[in-house]
Amino acid sequence: MGTALAGALLSAGYRTTVWNRTPGRSADLVARGAAEAESATAAVLASPLVLVTLLDYDGVAELLTRTAQALPGRTVVNLTTGTPDQARAMAARWEERGARYVDGAMMAVPQTVATPEAFFLYSGSREGFESHRHVLDRLAAGHYLGPDPAAAELWDTALLGSGYAALTGFLHGAALLDTVGVPAARFVPLVTQWLEGIAAFMTDLATEIDSGAYAESFSPVGMNRIAVANIVGVSRSQGVDAEVHAPLRALLDRRVADGHGDDSFASLFELLRSRAAPWSGGA
Amino acid sequence: MGTALAGALLSAGYRTTVWNRTPGRSADLVARGAAEAESATAAVLASPLVLVTLLDYDGVAELLTRTAQALPGRTVVNLTTGTPDQARAMAARWEERGARYVDGAMMAVPQTVATPEAFFLYSGSREGFESHRHVLDRLAAGHYLGPDPAAAELWDTALLGSGYAALTGFLHGAALLDTVGVPAARFVPLVTQWLEGIAAFMTDLATEIDSGAYAESFSPVGMNRIAVANIVGVSRSQGVDAEVHAPLRALLDRRVADGHGDDSFASLFELLRSRAAPWSGGA
Repeated sequence: MGTALAGALLSAGYRTTVWNRTPGRSADLVARGAAEAESATAAVLASPLVLVTLLDYDGVAELLTRTAQALPGRTVVNLTTGTPDQARAMAARWEERGARYVDGAMMAVPQTVATPEAFFLYSGSREGFESHRHVLDRLAAGHYLGPDPAAAELWDTALLGSGYAALTGFLHGAALLDTVGVPAARFVPLVTQWLEGIAAFMTDLATEIDSGAYAESFSPVGMNRIAVANIVGVSRSQGVDAEVHAPLRALLDRRVADGHGDDSFASLFELLRSRAAPWSGGA
Repeated sequence: MGTALAGALLSAGYRTTVWNRTPGRSADLVARGAAEAESATAAVLASPLVLVTLLDYDGVAELLTRTAQALPGRTVVNLTTGTPDQARAMAARWEERGARYVDGAMMAVPQTVATPEAFFLYSGSREGFESHRHVLDRLAAGHYLGPDPAAAELWDTALLGSGYAALTGFLHGAALLDTVGVPAARFVPLVTQWLEGIAAFMTDLATEIDSGAYAESFSPVGMNRIAVANIVGVSRSQGVDAEVHAPLRALLDRRVADGHGDDSFASLFELLRSRAAPWSGGA
């Protein structure tokens, strides 16, 4: 991923210095015009903006220790995958050393960097983000999510989870159609069209969630409970594992048992939301 | 839903006869030009094409018994929600009586009938479908899925399941962001964009599933297992129920335990597919 990012900056004409923990890994980038730093500190000293993408946060902590002397006045954008808690802890440590810390999450694969399919999430130092936005926008469309450095990682988790859920549903649907000899490729166009409609429906769900007004709905929990039970029943009769839909079924059952069968499907949110969240008391 | 369908046919200028088990429910349609039949048999006799949308298949069986004398030569399109097994059994019974039977599933709500968002699935009598396609296309874009009358219901189940999975993932993501005070409405634009990319990725998964070639992948099971474990961990640390992702996590764990950690994410399909399917032996 680091190679894709540096490549995008070189293509955009930015002077780019690279450093890799494994020497020689940057040969292609150097051939394209990148300067190769002899040490991490030299790389940090070379630019006002430092992009960090490492295997994990242990690597980021090690980098901090190594380059501490060079950090005052630099903006560090840490694109390493981690948790919200790690991002908060890391922000405090870099800022202690005089750097502006921006945490980032890349909704992309190397092939989509610098294409319209990719987007990056940022949170933490607003000044750091704003002053380098013109550079960051060359990597992917950037979304600044607020000063809490944990926000980018949390949004990343929320998006990844939504994507995995959709893919799991797709695999299950493909397994169902496989039982009557339909290839998965034939499923793709209709499931894609169907999911576009589902995405549009999310706007309605969000309105209900944000208002807490679940009473007026054309898609009540009780009706959805019957539909999901039917999906599970059909799966079993076709010999396909129905476990994928078990958690949703359990949520619908609980909501009906709690006397909310006439509420909207969106009201399942109330069973998922954190009881620990300080602002959840008023809902 | 019956009202929406009859309304669409009236709007398209078709002579339409309606019958409802509850007298007087058709008053609006009659005001728009529909003929109201005095009995189910009279309704069947009025047209070469009979659309049936009832609460359940018990109602459909009752209708068959009532109208048996009128059925020879008619095409019956049964849009009532049911299971693949019910559709197969029903097809045999209507055809015994001399009707051509088409089973249908409506990927729509009443508000989207006759709009580009809706599409209907059909299977069963090809002749019945083809000879009335020009009428059916006024209701929604129609997809004929083959002569097995069960196909429409099975596709319906596969699509509904995919949609529910995506919605469940959305609710979980919204609950995660709620823990840092982000309203669900703010989540919608980015999750929509992300799911568009996920839908495009389904094409790649389908290619792998249909070829059974899971070895060359930039998204191996082992990597996805770490990512999903991370989603579960972050959810728990934010106080959000992570059960939604438990089945996917279990599938990834099983695949790694079976020695397939380097295979593609798509290979989870092999854990879901029916062992009973007659064509699964060759994969």
